[in-house]
Amino acid sequence: MSGNVSHILIAPGAFKHCLGAAAVAEAMDRGLIRSGLNAVTHRLPIADGGNGTVDAWLAQGGERVTLSVCDPLGRDVQADYGLLPDDRTAVIEMAQASGIELIPDEQLNPFVTDTYGTGQLMQDALERGMRRFIIGMGGSATVDGGMGALRALGVRLLDKAGEPIPHGNAGLAKLVTIDTSLLDARWQGCEIIIASDVENPTLGLTGAAAVFGPQKGATPDMVPTLEDNLCHFFTLIAEQHGVDVRELVGGGAAGALSASLIAFLGGRIVSGIDLLLEHNHFVDHLAQADLVITGEGRMDEQTIYGKGPIGVARLAREHGVPTVALVGGLQTDDATLHEAGLQAVLPIINEPMSLEDALANGRHLIEQTALRLGYLLQIKRA
Amino acid sequence: MSGNVSHILIAPGAFKHCLGAAAVAEAMDRGLIRSGLNAVTHRLPIADGGNGTVDAWLAQGGERVTLSVCDPLGRDVQADYGLLPDDRTAVIEMAQASGIELIPDEQLNPFVTDTYGTGQLMQDALERGMRRFIIGMGGSATVDGGMGALRALGVRLLDKAGEPIPHGNAGLAKLVTIDTSLLDARWQGCEIIIASDVENPTLGLTGAAAVFGPQKGATPDMVPTLEDNLCHFFTLIAEQHGVDVRELVGGGAAGALSASLIAFLGGRIVSGIDLLLEHNHFVDHLAQADLVITGEGRMDEQTIYGKGPIGVARLAREHGVPTVALVGGLQTDDATLHEAGLQAVLPIINEPMSLEDALANGRHLIEQTALRLGYLLQIKRA
Repeated sequence: MSGNVSHILIAPGAFKHCLGAAAVAEAMDRGLIRSGLNAVTHRLPIADGGNGTVDAWLAQGGERVTLSVCDPLGRDVQADYGLLPDDRTAVIEMAQASGIELIPDEQLNPFVTDTYGTGQLMQDALERGMRRFIIGMGGSATVDGGMGALRALGVRLLDKAGEPIPHGNAGLAKLVTIDTSLLDARWQGCEIIIASDVENPTLGLTGAAAVFGPQKGATPDMVPTLEDNLCHFFTLIAEQHGVDVRELVGGGAAGALSASLIAFLGGRIVSGIDLLLEHNHFVDHLAQADLVITGEGRMDEQTIYGKGPIGVARLAREHGVPTVALVGGLQTDDATLHEAGLQAVLPIINEPMSLEDALANGRHLIEQTALRLGYLLQIKRA
Repeated sequence: MSGNVSHILIAPGAFKHCLGAAAVAEAMDRGLIRSGLNAVTHRLPIADGGNGTVDAWLAQGGERVTLSVCDPLGRDVQADYGLLPDDRTAVIEMAQASGIELIPDEQLNPFVTDTYGTGQLMQDALERGMRRFIIGMGGSATVDGGMGALRALGVRLLDKAGEPIPHGNAGLAKLVTIDTSLLDARWQGCEIIIASDVENPTLGLTGAAAVFGPQKGATPDMVPTLEDNLCHFFTLIAEQHGVDVRELVGGGAAGALSASLIAFLGGRIVSGIDLLLEHNHFVDHLAQADLVITGEGRMDEQTIYGKGPIGVARLAREHGVPTVALVGGLQTDDATLHEAGLQAVLPIINEPMSLEDALANGRHLIEQTALRLGYLLQIKRA
């Protein structure tokens, strides 16, 4: 690319436990510029609905709202959500309020963790006049079927004595009555878009409890109870509220928060990454690009089934643009990812080091690797 | 380089404690080929006189001799040396017989370790009719002033009772008489070339004992005694043998083996890497090359003062050819190395891992990184 100016699209995801997508894009940009590469860069950080979703949506403009809400254990946590420039769309990232990264591993317990904080974010955005909601799933600590979020929106979940049930998945066992009379009426006029790249159904062998419970602290013998409680909850929803989301594809996202939001607020589930790429006019940017740089914290054999960086790479390839990914950890053969659509993958680790050191130095390691890539791109062709 | 065939010169050094230079070059070659890059590769592994010297010299042809000799502690060790196709040049790598990698750290003791095995290799090559000797310094476990090697060649080192002195640096304290009457007369007709990239003198503050003693197991209070013994030895050499090498530049290489070989066999000290590059017609190969790939185990700020990969890169740059280095550990800023002449550096570490894991998987990691580089080189320019 020496001689001519090239156009580089910088479209990374978040490096989990390390750096948000926007900060990753910034570090990449800085490294490329330092290399002296004759290039125009454009940053379009990506997110699939999970961590980094608010950052990614706000990268092209909009306003950030920071709020003190309840974390999955009911403690105070500062969470952000985004207001898009159209003045009617809020971007909510459930992981900001109800994410697994908010709780130490030893305190994870899906019987008690809940999504109340996510509901608080939604209600706050409603009060601010928002009427279109992009709600990102992914990275949750919860298997509460969204009961926490529903409570925050005004849905009353009562036991046989007419008292509120306890918080979390365990509380659902006591549920007898679902009372929506206090649900804010303004929700009926809202457009709800669940941004998720998970296709698991609400219940069953591939559902929220069975597949994701163990990642959220469930021991093997907890899983059947988590499933029974969700089943009881969604059966009552079908019976008392008249909406059956028990087999909904994608209903299992974020501990089945996805399913209950659809049940009570309506709306649809869409691919989080596709929605963002569309919002950011990604394909239009591709038309001008010579190279895409993406990245994420870890790539393994499962990556090729995902929609994040590999989805970006495939879309770019369809438009004849090669993609290079920077990754924190590469746990599969480079050739596998190359065949799946990534031109090349560059690990950011520059010497033997612990995971802790890598996470602590992520920003610097990403910048150095982009610098390195910039130098490589300046090699003249034969 | 897509479209046209490119010519790539693969000229790495050894990855210390991991893989020899020839094996590194092979792994790089394999990775590049797997990438589908339309390139002709040519392997010219490099070495500066230390580990990997025999491999590097034999990479273009010649014969390998394996011999059982004494290691620095007097135990049996299998050591290789090389016979070049001219049928008169032997390439001896002192580290093969007297190297620090042959002994566990806790057994390192420069008072007792000696270079007898290196002398055995030399004498064996002499018996085979060799008359030109390239003797690589570097990687030694010894500070014996070459007394071990001299003994193997027939020089008698006697105490006041006329008995042979004990082995190692400590024995030198008892030296009274140097008797060269049994030194093989054929050595007088030989050309001796010391291949070394160390400029330290034999004695003094920057000499063999002071600078390199600590790396070889010397505690701080051992260093003055090591120095005194060397000083006594080289003073006797000057007095009884009539050759004063006490201030010889480069005499401090390999525990001052360098100095004593010059004193008794004559010859000269030359840059090991320059000699090899000349032997391999490196500059002629550069004229055809589009890219050089080099590498070594570790790069840090000191690298830019060295002669290995950075020397290769500078020579290549003089001929307008960019160089990319693959390294096991990168401990300085990429920009520092770029300014020093390396177009780019690619660390081979693909995820957070221990040094032990990196060393155990070196071959695979190098191949994967070359594969990655091959993919990157196929990116079309704007």
